[in-house]
Amino acid sequence: MEKVGKYNIRDERNISMLMDFYELTMSQGYIANDMQQKEVAFDLFFRKVPDGGGFVVFAGLEQIIQYIKGLHFSEEDIAYLRSLQRFDESFLTYLKNFKFRGSIYAVREGTPVYPKVPLLTVVANIIEAQLIETALLVIINHQSLIATKANRMKRAAGDCMVMELGARRAQGFDAANFGARAAYIGGVDASATLSANQYFSVPVVGTMAHSWIQLFGNTKASEYEAFCAYAKVYEDNCSLLIDTFDVLHSGLPNAIKVAKEYLEPRGKRLQSVRLDSGDLAYLSKKVREELDKHQMSDCKIIVSNSIDEFLIHSLIAQGAKIDIFGIGERLITAKSDPVFGGVYKLAAVKEKEENGQYVWKPRIKKSENIEKITFPGLKRVWRITNPKTGFVIMDILTMHDEKIDPSHDYSFIDPEKPWVQRTTKKGFIAEELLIPIFEKGECVYECPSLKEIRKYAQKQIQDHMWEEEKRFENPHKHYVNLSLKLYRMQMELLNHIADEEE
Amino acid sequence: MEKVGKYNIRDERNISMLMDFYELTMSQGYIANDMQQKEVAFDLFFRKVPDGGGFVVFAGLEQIIQYIKGLHFSEEDIAYLRSLQRFDESFLTYLKNFKFRGSIYAVREGTPVYPKVPLLTVVANIIEAQLIETALLVIINHQSLIATKANRMKRAAGDCMVMELGARRAQGFDAANFGARAAYIGGVDASATLSANQYFSVPVVGTMAHSWIQLFGNTKASEYEAFCAYAKVYEDNCSLLIDTFDVLHSGLPNAIKVAKEYLEPRGKRLQSVRLDSGDLAYLSKKVREELDKHQMSDCKIIVSNSIDEFLIHSLIAQGAKIDIFGIGERLITAKSDPVFGGVYKLAAVKEKEENGQYVWKPRIKKSENIEKITFPGLKRVWRITNPKTGFVIMDILTMHDEKIDPSHDYSFIDPEKPWVQRTTKKGFIAEELLIPIFEKGECVYECPSLKEIRKYAQKQIQDHMWEEEKRFENPHKHYVNLSLKLYRMQMELLNHIADEEE
Repeated sequence: MEKVGKYNIRDERNISMLMDFYELTMSQGYIANDMQQKEVAFDLFFRKVPDGGGFVVFAGLEQIIQYIKGLHFSEEDIAYLRSLQRFDESFLTYLKNFKFRGSIYAVREGTPVYPKVPLLTVVANIIEAQLIETALLVIINHQSLIATKANRMKRAAGDCMVMELGARRAQGFDAANFGARAAYIGGVDASATLSANQYFSVPVVGTMAHSWIQLFGNTKASEYEAFCAYAKVYEDNCSLLIDTFDVLHSGLPNAIKVAKEYLEPRGKRLQSVRLDSGDLAYLSKKVREELDKHQMSDCKIIVSNSIDEFLIHSLIAQGAKIDIFGIGERLITAKSDPVFGGVYKLAAVKEKEENGQYVWKPRIKKSENIEKITFPGLKRVWRITNPKTGFVIMDILTMHDEKIDPSHDYSFIDPEKPWVQRTTKKGFIAEELLIPIFEKGECVYECPSLKEIRKYAQKQIQDHMWEEEKRFENPHKHYVNLSLKLYRMQMELLNHIADEEE
Repeated sequence: MEKVGKYNIRDERNISMLMDFYELTMSQGYIANDMQQKEVAFDLFFRKVPDGGGFVVFAGLEQIIQYIKGLHFSEEDIAYLRSLQRFDESFLTYLKNFKFRGSIYAVREGTPVYPKVPLLTVVANIIEAQLIETALLVIINHQSLIATKANRMKRAAGDCMVMELGARRAQGFDAANFGARAAYIGGVDASATLSANQYFSVPVVGTMAHSWIQLFGNTKASEYEAFCAYAKVYEDNCSLLIDTFDVLHSGLPNAIKVAKEYLEPRGKRLQSVRLDSGDLAYLSKKVREELDKHQMSDCKIIVSNSIDEFLIHSLIAQGAKIDIFGIGERLITAKSDPVFGGVYKLAAVKEKEENGQYVWKPRIKKSENIEKITFPGLKRVWRITNPKTGFVIMDILTMHDEKIDPSHDYSFIDPEKPWVQRTTKKGFIAEELLIPIFEKGECVYECPSLKEIRKYAQKQIQDHMWEEEKRFENPHKHYVNLSLKLYRMQMELLNHIADEEE
């Protein structure tokens, strides 16, 4: 295949080079300052749930594993970097021999997660940790955004099936493919995107485009002809799009006619009709009525056209007769809130003590906005569950050398109400959320299948989450608490900065 | 490199399979109905300018050319499709031998374009035209969205430089890379995304992350140490991030100290400081004041933190002292309106007349929403310019067998005010917008360089567009008019559908 320009969209992909330029210039700077061996810990977390929701569905871990495994700089990359005349040969040699030898801890894909809780912690030398910043964020920010949005739509739809139809409005090919993957994790039942089935086994579905009907002509008669031609080829799986000219005066009567005159005489049924324009509440009721009147109550009604969780709620409240929601642009771009703001912040540095021992020293970012202050230090994340109800009570962050022992009462601090020390009675379940994915460069985690990830996500949300956390308006804010030790350490650091600036 | 799962993000990419499933099932249906040789024309157009703006910057043509050139179904794809048990062997053989042999006409990349005007017309047999629907839409919808958004931000920023820093918040890798490409076309000056420089030669820039400063410690003293370490490595190109702990009490005094104690004694200057949090209007003024007081008026102020065209306007109106805007998530996702709704609709079918001749017969989609009614027929698009002012007056759509002759007065219809026939006096300039890109499967178009595309876009917007079309609030709605022949044909088709449904 001929190549056009420097970048051909079908070439082998070079994700290693997808980074912010400063990751390279800083890395060269670390070497120049002889700091390249410093071991550090970075936390990846977010500050705000999109759409004002109560939780996020964490997604993208499998792609992170693939990215880390493949991470390297090719001869071509090195030659390109040399051409920029910004990097010296010793740094380019460093990159040529680069391999990620650090450790990565992350929550399982499909886990409901909350603001300020690390979703992923990287422990590595400063350059290894720095160079992967952008790729990690792109993957998690995108897939968690779409999985979370899909989950909202699926919950709004209740028992109705939800199909993802958004590829054409996605922000690029990856957004279409990985978006369909993430939407499936979030709870969507199927996708129209063929490659998402080929690559990820997301169940694939398809209906019919207006072009099929238009090809046959511009009239009610030609629409009937088009429907018959389709029924002839797909008599076991016949779904007809009925809004090309006029739903109630042309599309629907034609669809019923095809069912009666072509399909039913052959012992077949019309599977479904689709509405893609107009007043979906009104039309779906009229269509249902007509279909039922013709003994076609098994024929399902599919609707599409800029649908999201808010419109689903509204349609259901209006008593619309809908079996299947086809959801496109508002899911695949997360239209109402299209940014998932995951960040990647330095939390700790391993430093030599006077006694020659290396210990983790916390790092904090104070910044000019209170909400941007970080939780410092190398940490652990614990999810606390009530064993009787199965409901999650809270997440607790501790320092890395702390353990939470459920056989004793446990005291902690709510960082939003730090004036009171709270205690949870012994007998709770404490699960560590961050599990090892890479250890010293080796992958130690086996990814579950996509189906298993989806099932795990559904189970966490259905069986272990308070209803109050799931509502769309003013959901309960999940408790994210700190161990006494972690809280006191953070306060010490902040006090120290404040003192120094007086 | 080890493969994980079926889809490895570094593998050769298979864009040919990025399609909606119905494109394949319909194609099999066309063959079953012996319609596969039917020649058709599809128009790609959009209905609404994002953000209520006056125009869209068309982008993505180069990637469409690459996609069409590479379009094929591999043995692996065919085996996968066979495994679905939905396609018969004759159709799979058809796909195995598939090559795009049709013609594509499109507007030049970087052209300002308007609702309802075809941006691209495909003339091919029905299967060839149908199978490329999704990929064409993904490419144009994404890149035109970002180019348009970038142009808004660049225009808001006036003479200030605008840097694109959004990769980490992009909806996938493609969104980061192609987004940076499109943003550059739209007018952004540079991007932090390394691979966008490697692939597309988008100028690359980089500053410094908070992690650099944090690595050295948590104090004002360690921040100074971090700044010095950076200045030592990049003394010719030193830009410092000053909000890690406290801008006015720590970051700024430290930056000035580095300039005075390290850079200036070596004959070097501090290039810039960056603010990434806090009240950017207030802080930028205070920082400017301090810098000027220290004879550092050449030190530029860069701001970042959820910036878009609206915040740029507001900052400028407040007299903020900003030289460079760093723009991330709100550009790379087009946050305020993240969907560009390009559609791909059948416009005409070539049919055999009774005399044995083949003629183009128009097709229309009426639908249940007036704004979804299409302009039928194989068409031409003309851009009419006033030769004296250089300003574009309107676009006119005609049937494919019409020409607009500027040496005569020309009469046309405004489809929004069809009761009056309007005339433009001879002497205008009439340029055809849709130019041949592929002819019978062969690419006949040479892509300009990205720089040329960007320059062309800027020129069209600066020299040939009314100011009234560029404003953000209630911009002038560009005139898109129809030839008398096209208008009458559309009315005939609509009347015919209406009569038939009585």
